[in-house]
Amino acid sequence: MPRSSPDPNFEQRVRDSFARQRFMATLGARIVSVVPGEVLIELPWREELAQQHGVLHAGAVASIADSACGYAALSLMPAGSGVMSVEFKVNLLAPGRGERFLAIGRVRRAGRTLTVCEGTVKTIRGAEEREVAIMTATMIRLEGRPDLAD
Amino acid sequence: MPRSSPDPNFEQRVRDSFARQRFMATLGARIVSVVPGEVLIELPWREELAQQHGVLHAGAVASIADSACGYAALSLMPAGSGVMSVEFKVNLLAPGRGERFLAIGRVRRAGRTLTVCEGTVKTIRGAEEREVAIMTATMIRLEGRPDLAD
Amino acid sequence: MPRSSPDPNFEQRVRDSFARQRFMATLGARIVSVVPGEVLIELPWREELAQQHGVLHAGAVASIADSACGYAALSLMPAGSGVMSVEFKVNLLAPGRGERFLAIGRVRRAGRTLTVCEGTVKTIRGAEEREVAIMTATMIRLEGRPDLAD
Amino acid sequence: MPRSSPDPNFEQRVRDSFARQRFMATLGARIVSVVPGEVLIELPWREELAQQHGVLHAGAVASIADSACGYAALSLMPAGSGVMSVEFKVNLLAPGRGERFLAIGRVRRAGRTLTVCEGTVKTIRGAEEREVAIMTATMIRLEGRPDLAD
Repeated sequence: MPRSSPDPNFEQRVRDSFARQRFMATLGARIVSVVPGEVLIELPWREELAQQHGVLHAGAVASIADSACGYAALSLMPAGSGVMSVEFKVNLLAPGRGERFLAIGRVRRAGRTLTVCEGTVKTIRGAEEREVAIMTATMIRLEGRPDLAD
Repeated sequence: MPRSSPDPNFEQRVRDSFARQRFMATLGARIVSVVPGEVLIELPWREELAQQHGVLHAGAVASIADSACGYAALSLMPAGSGVMSVEFKVNLLAPGRGERFLAIGRVRRAGRTLTVCEGTVKTIRGAEEREVAIMTATMIRLEGRPDLAD
Repeated sequence: MPRSSPDPNFEQRVRDSFARQRFMATLGARIVSVVPGEVLIELPWREELAQQHGVLHAGAVASIADSACGYAALSLMPAGSGVMSVEFKVNLLAPGRGERFLAIGRVRRAGRTLTVCEGTVKTIRGAEEREVAIMTATMIRLEGRPDLAD
Repeated sequence: MPRSSPDPNFEQRVRDSFARQRFMATLGARIVSVVPGEVLIELPWREELAQQHGVLHAGAVASIADSACGYAALSLMPAGSGVMSVEFKVNLLAPGRGERFLAIGRVRRAGRTLTVCEGTVKTIRGAEEREVAIMTATMIRLEGRPDLAD
């Protein structure tokens, strides 16, 4: 179902906060799209991201899924809120082998304080898509903390 | 309780496999110690690993905990085995603020195929230690796959 | 996508195994439907299932979701297999208040040994539905263990 | 490390709330001990709690671990608070076969709103103990909700 954000400026707010995540730049990840309750992050394959068998490290998989989920949550929060990860779980479904990876974060339930998100990471090789991992995550809204506002 | 590995060469095998994880070098992580069923990984703080509030990204936290857990599992596996992450969950206990981070991976139960591990990530600032995150993880042993042996 | 089971007798096999789960009878749960890769379990509300605030105990929520996921996994396994839970995680989305509860277990990825499932528990009050919880679970196939075949 | 509770009446409060969990009585579970940050629950084996192979259903394992974790969290909360499960994950380590089961819930980190707990379920057969499962759980403190105070 289409959702709406309480903050008309939600997309810019998410993109600006993402741009402050130095780790996403270190990975080479970029934000692809932001709609209320759903964020896509793309990560091109590089050998610098490999685990010992030459595929994407599960920690890199988790990293882009966590950011996608966190920003999906933020996209539905009022201006002035900050977002932090409370917990996440990743199930690895297939080795992360591909030219690029797409992490989709979606809000499953947005509460006043806690938001539950689902993430999926897919690998794309040419025309072929394959699911690499799924995530469920809990995100917390930080209120009244201008130093941590996103 | 002290454990023993079925492979007398377990430490070298773990260190060699870790050295093939290009992502650990990208993060700047190094392996500190390997004993049967327990592996320590250290990650010095760098701004390139930050999330939007300037602390260690939860994905980087998960990455070193995942590698520590995976290699703790590998340390108890027979020679010729490979190790892969099946799933992990991370609970973030405190913001990842510190000079360096230590991930401890420990085997909780080693089965023939599956190994359950617990991970802890601590932050160290001078003489002070603080827990940043805990992980529980399932690792799978790959057998008869010389291409994936660790 | 519709799936097919390697065992033409999958539905009876799942129903028979469910009938051996004494705990499902203790809860008052019954199996509603079995298709390849998806199983529905219904649990009518009873005060004997309450936690301290008078809503469905999270453990009862997890129980029906775990059985739904396990049997969804079994529905895609060859005859002679047994199924056991490796791990599951539950995120509670809303208090379990309603006349009856429906647990839907679906296979997300079926491997030779491990199957990853997603579960949802909904509460139904009259014409209204609400999501109570989501689960991700890993199930293992037991082979060559006639004593544990399901 | 020994902890202290902000509520001198914490033990009675936990025991009273446990007594209101009708589901614990349905299972046959009883509370064994309550100290600040740690709660033990015992469950004698009964066939009515079995899964299809005749061992304790993973949902029953999760149920006593969830209550032990929730009440460990409550034991450190101020009077007037209520406690609810946000999420939990269970890793099953061994089949739940034994005469009785002991769930230990311990607080790993107590925050103002969220508390992270670890649970262990052991099986006891005569003089022998075996770990059946481990849990990590997030509990939330309900404030200003006298109707949900525990």
